[in-house]
Amino acid sequence: MKKSIALAAFGIAAFSFAATASAQAKPEDQIKYRKAGYSFMSWNMGKIKSNLEGTYNKDQVIAAANAIAGIANSGMGALYGPGTEKDVGDQKTRAKPELFQNMQEVGRIATDFNAATAKLASAAATGDKAAVQAAFGEVGKNCKACHDKFRAD
Amino acid sequence: MKKSIALAAFGIAAFSFAATASAQAKPEDQIKYRKAGYSFMSWNMGKIKSNLEGTYNKDQVIAAANAIAGIANSGMGALYGPGTEKDVGDQKTRAKPELFQNMQEVGRIATDFNAATAKLASAAATGDKAAVQAAFGEVGKNCKACHDKFRAD
Repeated sequence: MKKSIALAAFGIAAFSFAATASAQAKPEDQIKYRKAGYSFMSWNMGKIKSNLEGTYNKDQVIAAANAIAGIANSGMGALYGPGTEKDVGDQKTRAKPELFQNMQEVGRIATDFNAATAKLASAAATGDKAAVQAAFGEVGKNCKACHDKFRAD
Repeated sequence: MKKSIALAAFGIAAFSFAATASAQAKPEDQIKYRKAGYSFMSWNMGKIKSNLEGTYNKDQVIAAANAIAGIANSGMGALYGPGTEKDVGDQKTRAKPELFQNMQEVGRIATDFNAATAKLASAAATGDKAAVQAAFGEVGKNCKACHDKFRAD
Protein backbone atom coordinates (compact mmCIF):
# COMPACT_ATOMS: atom_id res chain seq x y z
CA MET A 1 0.00 0.00 0.00
CA LYS A 2 3.06 2.27 -0.18
CA LYS A 3 1.86 3.94 -3.34
CA SER A 4 -1.57 4.58 -1.86
CA ILE A 5 -0.09 6.26 1.16
CA ALA A 6 2.29 8.36 -0.91
CA LEU A 7 -0.46 9.52 -3.23
CA ALA A 8 -2.77 10.22 -0.31
CA ALA A 9 -0.22 12.83 0.73
CA PHE A 10 -1.12 14.62 -2.46
CA GLY A 11 -4.79 14.56 -1.58
CA ILE A 12 -5.78 12.04 -4.20
CA ALA A 13 -6.46 9.07 -2.02
CA ALA A 14 -9.85 8.46 -3.56
CA PHE A 15 -8.35 8.02 -6.97
CA SER A 16 -5.24 6.17 -6.01
CA PHE A 17 -6.57 3.41 -3.81
CA ALA A 18 -3.83 1.06 -4.90
CA ALA A 19 -4.10 -2.68 -5.12
CA THR A 20 -1.75 -4.63 -2.93
CA ALA A 21 1.51 -5.22 -4.70
CA SER A 22 0.79 -8.84 -5.51
CA ALA A 23 -2.54 -7.92 -7.13
CA GLN A 24 -1.11 -5.18 -9.30
CA ALA A 25 -2.27 -5.86 -12.82
CA LYS A 26 -0.02 -5.55 -15.86
CA PRO A 27 -0.28 -2.18 -17.69
CA GLU A 28 -2.21 -3.79 -20.55
CA ASP A 29 -4.68 -5.30 -18.10
CA GLN A 30 -4.99 -2.06 -16.15
CA ILE A 31 -6.14 -0.33 -19.34
CA LYS A 32 -8.50 -3.21 -20.11
CA TYR A 33 -10.04 -3.15 -16.63
CA ARG A 34 -10.48 0.60 -16.43
CA LYS A 35 -12.14 0.68 -19.84
CA ALA A 36 -14.37 -2.18 -18.73
CA GLY A 37 -15.37 -0.25 -15.62
CA TYR A 38 -16.29 2.90 -17.55
CA SER A 39 -18.07 0.89 -20.21
CA PHE A 40 -20.20 -0.91 -17.67
CA MET A 41 -21.00 2.32 -15.84
CA SER A 42 -22.01 3.83 -19.17
CA TRP A 43 -24.50 1.04 -19.81
CA ASN A 44 -26.03 1.62 -16.41
CA MET A 45 -26.12 5.41 -16.81
CA GLY A 46 -28.03 4.77 -20.04
CA LYS A 47 -30.54 2.62 -18.20
CA ILE A 48 -31.13 5.28 -15.56
CA LYS A 49 -31.52 7.93 -18.25
CA SER A 50 -34.06 5.76 -19.98
CA ASN A 51 -35.99 5.31 -16.74
CA LEU A 52 -35.99 9.05 -16.11
CA GLU A 53 -37.24 9.77 -19.60
CA GLY A 54 -39.77 6.95 -19.78
CA THR A 55 -41.42 4.52 -17.41
CA TYR A 56 -39.66 4.65 -14.05
CA ASN A 57 -38.75 1.22 -12.69
CA LYS A 58 -37.47 1.71 -9.16
CA ASP A 59 -35.72 -1.67 -8.90
CA GLN A 60 -33.91 -1.23 -12.18
CA VAL A 61 -32.68 2.22 -11.17
CA ILE A 62 -31.49 0.91 -7.80
CA ALA A 63 -29.62 -1.94 -9.46
CA ALA A 64 -28.03 0.36 -12.03
CA ALA A 65 -27.04 2.97 -9.44
CA ASN A 66 -25.52 0.31 -7.17
CA ALA A 67 -23.44 -1.01 -10.05
CA ILE A 68 -22.19 2.48 -10.87
CA ALA A 69 -21.38 3.33 -7.25
CA GLY A 70 -19.71 -0.05 -6.72
CA ILE A 71 -17.49 0.37 -9.75
CA ALA A 72 -16.68 4.04 -9.14
CA ASN A 73 -15.65 3.36 -5.56
CA SER A 74 -13.67 0.20 -6.24
CA GLY A 75 -10.30 1.92 -6.38
CA MET A 76 -9.95 2.57 -10.09
CA GLY A 77 -6.98 4.86 -9.45
CA ALA A 78 -4.90 1.69 -9.24
CA LEU A 79 -5.63 1.22 -12.96
CA TYR A 80 -3.65 4.30 -13.98
CA GLY A 81 -0.22 2.97 -13.04
CA PRO A 82 3.07 3.49 -14.84
CA GLY A 83 3.04 2.29 -18.41
CA THR A 84 -0.67 2.92 -18.93
CA GLU A 85 -0.26 6.40 -20.44
CA LYS A 86 -0.48 5.05 -23.96
CA ASP A 87 -1.70 2.08 -25.94
CA VAL A 88 -0.19 -1.22 -24.77
CA GLY A 89 -0.45 -4.31 -26.92
CA ASP A 90 -4.04 -4.69 -28.06
CA GLN A 91 -5.31 -2.22 -25.50
CA LYS A 92 -5.95 1.28 -26.77
CA THR A 93 -6.51 4.12 -24.34
CA ARG A 94 -8.15 7.47 -24.88
CA ALA A 95 -6.68 8.87 -21.68
CA LYS A 96 -4.70 12.00 -22.60
CA PRO A 97 -1.11 12.43 -21.39
CA GLU A 98 -2.43 15.46 -19.43
CA LEU A 99 -4.30 13.08 -17.13
CA PHE A 100 -1.06 11.57 -15.88
CA GLN A 101 0.51 15.01 -15.50
CA ASN A 102 -2.34 16.37 -13.38
CA MET A 103 -3.05 13.64 -10.90
CA GLN A 104 -4.02 16.07 -8.15
CA GLU A 105 -6.78 17.56 -10.28
CA VAL A 106 -7.82 14.14 -11.51
CA GLY A 107 -7.96 13.03 -7.90
CA ARG A 108 -10.29 15.90 -7.02
CA ILE A 109 -12.60 15.09 -9.92
CA ALA A 110 -12.54 11.41 -9.01
CA THR A 111 -13.37 12.20 -5.38
CA ASP A 112 -16.36 14.28 -6.49
CA PHE A 113 -17.40 11.61 -8.96
CA ASN A 114 -17.22 8.85 -6.39
CA ALA A 115 -19.29 10.87 -3.93
CA ALA A 116 -21.84 11.72 -6.62
CA THR A 117 -22.29 8.04 -7.48
CA ALA A 118 -22.84 7.21 -3.81
CA LYS A 119 -25.49 9.95 -3.65
CA LEU A 120 -27.11 8.56 -6.77
CA ALA A 121 -27.33 5.12 -5.15
CA SER A 122 -28.86 6.65 -2.02
CA ALA A 123 -31.37 8.63 -4.08
CA ALA A 124 -32.27 5.53 -6.09
CA ALA A 125 -32.98 3.60 -2.90
CA THR A 126 -35.64 6.15 -1.93
CA GLY A 127 -37.45 5.77 -5.25
CA ASP A 128 -37.82 9.55 -5.44
CA LYS A 129 -37.57 10.24 -9.17
CA ALA A 130 -36.81 13.95 -8.74
CA ALA A 131 -33.97 13.17 -6.33
CA VAL A 132 -32.60 10.60 -8.76
CA GLN A 133 -32.84 13.12 -11.59
CA ALA A 134 -30.78 15.64 -9.61
CA ALA A 135 -28.21 13.08 -8.46
CA PHE A 136 -27.96 11.65 -11.97
CA GLY A 137 -27.21 15.15 -13.28
CA GLU A 138 -24.40 15.54 -10.76
CA VAL A 139 -22.83 12.23 -11.78
CA GLY A 140 -23.06 13.24 -15.42
CA LYS A 141 -21.37 16.56 -14.68
CA ASN A 142 -18.47 14.75 -13.07
CA CYS A 143 -18.18 12.31 -15.99
CA LYS A 144 -18.04 15.29 -18.34
CA ALA A 145 -15.55 17.22 -16.21
CA CYS A 146 -13.02 14.45 -16.68
CA HIS A 147 -13.88 13.60 -20.29
CA ASP A 148 -13.61 17.21 -21.45
CA LYS A 149 -10.14 17.63 -20.03
CA PHE A 150 -8.57 14.24 -20.00
CA ARG A 151 -10.16 12.01 -22.64
CA ALA A 152 -9.36 12.17 -26.31
CA ASP A 153 -12.26 12.17 -28.78
CA MET B 1 -40.66 -4.87 -19.55
CA LYS B 2 -42.55 -7.45 -21.59
CA LYS B 3 -39.50 -9.57 -22.13
CA SER B 4 -38.65 -9.57 -18.46
CA ILE B 5 -42.11 -10.72 -17.51
CA ALA B 6 -42.10 -13.43 -20.14
CA LEU B 7 -38.75 -14.78 -19.05
CA ALA B 8 -39.74 -14.60 -15.39
CA ALA B 9 -42.37 -17.17 -16.25
CA PHE B 10 -39.50 -19.53 -17.00
CA GLY B 11 -38.00 -18.91 -13.59
CA ILE B 12 -35.05 -16.93 -14.83
CA ALA B 13 -36.05 -13.49 -13.65
CA ALA B 14 -32.72 -12.88 -11.96
CA PHE B 15 -30.87 -13.38 -15.19
CA SER B 16 -33.32 -11.69 -17.50
CA PHE B 17 -33.92 -8.38 -15.78
CA ALA B 18 -34.49 -6.64 -19.06
CA ALA B 19 -33.75 -3.02 -19.80
CA THR B 20 -36.71 -0.91 -20.77
CA ALA B 21 -37.27 -1.07 -24.49
CA SER B 22 -35.78 2.34 -25.16
CA ALA B 23 -32.59 1.44 -23.31
CA GLN B 24 -32.10 -1.86 -25.09
CA ALA B 25 -28.54 -1.87 -26.38
CA LYS B 26 -27.59 -3.09 -29.85
CA PRO B 27 -26.35 -6.72 -29.96
CA GLU B 28 -22.75 -5.57 -30.49
CA ASP B 29 -22.99 -3.30 -27.44
CA GLN B 30 -24.69 -6.00 -25.36
CA ILE B 31 -21.67 -8.24 -25.94
CA LYS B 32 -19.30 -5.36 -25.17
CA TYR B 33 -21.10 -4.50 -21.92
CA ARG B 34 -21.39 -8.04 -20.64
CA LYS B 35 -17.71 -8.67 -21.31
CA ALA B 36 -16.90 -5.41 -19.54
CA GLY B 37 -18.93 -6.51 -16.52
CA TYR B 38 -17.21 -9.88 -16.24
CA SER B 39 -13.81 -8.32 -16.83
CA PHE B 40 -14.30 -5.77 -14.07
CA MET B 41 -15.60 -8.44 -11.69
CA SER B 42 -12.54 -10.52 -12.51
CA TRP B 43 -10.20 -7.68 -11.53
CA ASN B 44 -12.00 -7.34 -8.23
CA MET B 45 -12.02 -11.08 -7.57
CA GLY B 46 -8.26 -10.96 -8.09
CA LYS B 47 -7.92 -8.21 -5.51
CA ILE B 48 -9.92 -10.15 -2.94
CA LYS B 49 -7.86 -13.27 -3.62
CA SER B 50 -4.72 -11.26 -3.10
CA ASN B 51 -6.04 -9.90 0.18
CA LEU B 52 -6.93 -13.40 1.37
CA GLU B 53 -3.50 -14.72 0.47
CA GLY B 54 -1.51 -11.75 1.71
CA THR B 55 -2.10 -8.70 3.87
CA TYR B 56 -5.81 -8.26 4.48
CA ASN B 57 -7.07 -4.75 3.83
CA LYS B 58 -10.67 -4.58 4.97
CA ASP B 59 -11.57 -1.44 3.02
CA GLN B 60 -10.15 -2.79 -0.20
CA VAL B 61 -12.07 -6.04 0.17
CA ILE B 62 -15.30 -4.16 0.92
CA ALA B 63 -14.84 -1.97 -2.15
CA ALA B 64 -14.05 -4.93 -4.39
CA ALA B 65 -16.96 -7.00 -3.08
CA ASN B 66 -19.38 -4.09 -3.53
CA ALA B 67 -18.26 -3.66 -7.13
CA ILE B 68 -18.76 -7.37 -7.82
CA ALA B 69 -22.19 -7.49 -6.15
CA GLY B 70 -23.26 -4.28 -7.90
CA ILE B 71 -22.29 -5.59 -11.32
CA ALA B 72 -23.66 -9.09 -10.79
CA ASN B 73 -27.02 -7.76 -9.64
CA SER B 74 -27.37 -5.06 -12.30
CA GLY B 75 -29.50 -7.13 -14.64
CA MET B 76 -26.89 -8.62 -16.92
CA GLY B 77 -29.45 -11.00 -18.38
CA ALA B 78 -30.53 -8.11 -20.59
CA LEU B 79 -27.13 -8.39 -22.27
CA TYR B 80 -27.90 -11.82 -23.73
CA GLY B 81 -30.53 -10.70 -26.16
CA PRO B 82 -31.24 -11.97 -29.67
CA GLY B 83 -28.28 -11.59 -32.00
CA THR B 84 -25.68 -11.91 -29.24
CA GLU B 85 -25.12 -15.65 -29.70
CA LYS B 86 -22.09 -15.08 -31.88
CA ASP B 87 -19.47 -12.50 -32.74
CA VAL B 88 -20.98 -9.23 -33.95
CA GLY B 89 -18.78 -6.67 -35.68
CA ASP B 90 -15.66 -6.15 -33.61
CA GLN B 91 -17.16 -7.85 -30.58
CA LYS B 92 -16.16 -11.43 -30.05
CA THR B 93 -18.01 -13.61 -27.58
CA ARG B 94 -16.93 -16.80 -25.87
CA ALA B 95 -20.49 -17.62 -24.86
CA LYS B 96 -21.32 -21.07 -26.25
CA PRO B 97 -24.51 -21.63 -28.26
CA GLU B 98 -25.56 -23.97 -25.43
CA LEU B 99 -25.98 -20.97 -23.14
CA PHE B 100 -28.76 -19.58 -25.29
CA GLN B 101 -30.39 -23.00 -25.54
CA ASN B 102 -30.47 -23.54 -21.77
CA MET B 103 -31.68 -20.26 -20.37
CA GLN B 104 -33.50 -21.92 -17.47
CA GLU B 105 -30.31 -23.54 -16.23
CA VAL B 106 -28.33 -20.38 -16.89
CA GLY B 107 -30.95 -18.48 -14.92
CA ARG B 108 -30.52 -20.82 -11.96
CA ILE B 109 -26.75 -20.43 -12.00
CA ALA B 110 -27.12 -16.66 -12.33
CA THR B 111 -29.52 -16.54 -9.39
CA ASP B 112 -27.05 -18.49 -7.25
CA PHE B 113 -24.18 -16.32 -8.47
CA ASN B 114 -26.00 -13.09 -7.69
CA ALA B 115 -26.89 -14.29 -4.21
CA ALA B 116 -23.32 -15.44 -3.60
CA THR B 117 -21.94 -12.01 -4.54
CA ALA B 118 -24.40 -10.33 -2.15
CA LYS B 119 -23.21 -12.66 0.61
CA LEU B 120 -19.60 -11.83 -0.24
CA ALA B 121 -20.37 -8.12 0.12
CA SER B 122 -22.05 -8.75 3.49
CA ALA B 123 -19.12 -10.85 4.68
CA ALA B 124 -16.66 -8.19 3.53
CA ALA B 125 -18.51 -5.53 5.53
CA THR B 126 -17.92 -7.50 8.74
CA GLY B 127 -14.18 -7.66 8.14
CA ASP B 128 -14.21 -11.34 9.13
CA LYS B 129 -11.52 -12.85 6.92
CA ALA B 130 -12.73 -16.42 7.38
CA ALA B 131 -16.27 -15.45 6.38
CA VAL B 132 -14.92 -13.64 3.34
CA GLN B 133 -12.83 -16.68 2.44
CA ALA B 134 -15.92 -18.90 2.53
CA ALA B 135 -18.12 -16.45 0.62
CA PHE B 136 -15.37 -15.87 -1.93
CA GLY B 137 -15.18 -19.61 -2.52
CA GLU B 138 -18.92 -19.75 -3.15
CA VAL B 139 -18.73 -16.94 -5.71
CA GLY B 140 -15.83 -18.69 -7.44
CA LYS B 141 -17.81 -21.94 -7.58
CA ASN B 142 -20.65 -20.14 -9.33
CA CYS B 143 -18.30 -18.45 -11.78
CA LYS B 144 -16.86 -21.86 -12.59
CA ALA B 145 -20.25 -23.55 -12.90
CA CYS B 146 -21.14 -21.24 -15.77
CA HIS B 147 -17.68 -21.10 -17.37
CA ASP B 148 -17.33 -24.88 -17.46
CA LYS B 149 -20.62 -25.36 -19.25
CA PHE B 150 -21.22 -22.24 -21.23
CA ARG B 151 -17.95 -20.49 -21.98
CA ALA B 152 -15.57 -21.55 -24.74
CA ASP B 153 -11.86 -21.76 -23.90
